[in-house]
Amino acid sequence: MKKALAFDIGGTKIYSTIIDETGKVVGEIDKFSTPKTLDGIKKILKDQINKYEAKADVIAIATAGAVNNENTRVIGSTGNLPQGYSNIDFQSLSTKKVFLENDANAASWAEYKIGASRGTQVSVMLTLGTGVGGGIIVNNKLLKGKSGAAGEMHFKMYPDKRRKCTCGSWDCFEIYASGTALKLDAVEALNDKNVTTYDVIEGVKNNDKKMVDILSRWQNDIIEGIKGLANIFDPDCVVLSGSMAQFVDIKKVEEEVNSDIVTTPTSIRIATAGNYAGMIGAALMAF
Amino acid sequence: MKKALAFDIGGTKIYSTIIDETGKVVGEIDKFSTPKTLDGIKKILKDQINKYEAKADVIAIATAGAVNNENTRVIGSTGNLPQGYSNIDFQSLSTKKVFLENDANAASWAEYKIGASRGTQVSVMLTLGTGVGGGIIVNNKLLKGKSGAAGEMHFKMYPDKRRKCTCGSWDCFEIYASGTALKLDAVEALNDKNVTTYDVIEGVKNNDKKMVDILSRWQNDIIEGIKGLANIFDPDCVVLSGSMAQFVDIKKVEEEVNSDIVTTPTSIRIATAGNYAGMIGAALMAF
Repeated sequence: MKKALAFDIGGTKIYSTIIDETGKVVGEIDKFSTPKTLDGIKKILKDQINKYEAKADVIAIATAGAVNNENTRVIGSTGNLPQGYSNIDFQSLSTKKVFLENDANAASWAEYKIGASRGTQVSVMLTLGTGVGGGIIVNNKLLKGKSGAAGEMHFKMYPDKRRKCTCGSWDCFEIYASGTALKLDAVEALNDKNVTTYDVIEGVKNNDKKMVDILSRWQNDIIEGIKGLANIFDPDCVVLSGSMAQFVDIKKVEEEVNSDIVTTPTSIRIATAGNYAGMIGAALMAF
Repeated sequence: MKKALAFDIGGTKIYSTIIDETGKVVGEIDKFSTPKTLDGIKKILKDQINKYEAKADVIAIATAGAVNNENTRVIGSTGNLPQGYSNIDFQSLSTKKVFLENDANAASWAEYKIGASRGTQVSVMLTLGTGVGGGIIVNNKLLKGKSGAAGEMHFKMYPDKRRKCTCGSWDCFEIYASGTALKLDAVEALNDKNVTTYDVIEGVKNNDKKMVDILSRWQNDIIEGIKGLANIFDPDCVVLSGSMAQFVDIKKVEEEVNSDIVTTPTSIRIATAGNYAGMIGAALMAF
């Protein structure tokens, strides 16, 4: 059975393991803090490749940042990785074929092949974490756009400049639907700069009405965003993944979305491909 | 050369003509007011089919409303057409193959085959008229979604219920980017229920600052909406068509959109396939 040496390169951590053709993790999970320098990142990749490439047919990398349509390099800048990251020639690091895909895209492919959106033709995945990632499958293919950068969840929630988004623009879905957004909702509602996402979640557990309202506002913004995506894509399902997805009331989201769209009902699902979905998806695409 | 007897069925008018394989209009343009009854609509279709079907290889219908993935019938209700319209068995009206597509989808296909988005792989078309229509091409295929209803431009411009949209929901792009929206912008800005879209356009011609500001607000909402679509689809181009597109400053829209998106620059273009793009697109798809 074919195997891939897979990496997940994020702003804070780099993971690496071996994935087989069926999407199963068959190696140890190695974990590193993401170095602040390009050379540091390259060294980790090279060391792991030297150690494991003999066991692998292909190198599959899920990475932060948009990846070109040839799946060879990152295009544009990615806030959380060192400058020049997009200049890395990943293929030069191995004699095996090196395949790159954006982490959210790769994870959505894993959901499509072995997870929550398996068997569907059109699906939208939202990764709700510190930020919001997006991966869209249309007619059984990943939506990549002209340069490979499609699937960015930076559509406007307001047209009149209220909240600055991490992308530099204003009021994108990301800055109303992410973990960061939930903190901002709380800061605004309580007029307290020190309140955290954790405080909100703890408050909700203790039935603190203010915190319940804050979480509800955050969830409502997610619902409003999903309505738009449902009308644009008419998807079989919308999959929610990421560390913040557990705080979403899936049933309520599905009910509210479907009561207010012009397309046919869509199913809202929690991701099931697990924490290593990015590496799994990249590997399954690379084979 | 193959020919299609083509129809465009809208809420106020029904058009019909002959289109050839190259997308050229080769017949008279027949025009009817849309009857208020199902039987009235069927009668027009039958009469035209009886008159012209001998000349045609296929019947191609561009219609208001979402069309199923089999291109045989309208799904759901369409506000401007009589109740039960979705029950019409169009195939029963002719011995030739009858092919249906949503009017905005069909027009976007015409732009893709012979118009403004020719030669591109990913494009978004917005039809700015009384309402807003949408047609999206991904990897050289029309984006239809699970049931055929994709491409609806009903994503939210605000999440907090300000303006009721014609679809029954609140604050959709359509109700900020349509001709109706421009009128509403003017009504709100001038606190005058009788002001019309025409008044705004005349005012702008005469350099009336208030009217210039109203048009600018409307255009700004269009810009904000396009930014989201550009980030989601990373399209080669966004094509603007419809009666309201002429009031948009294309160059400014392109500049502003591209200065504020995370994907690579997109080109904003005016539609070039003409007033019969719906019939042309339906015919080109039907062949």
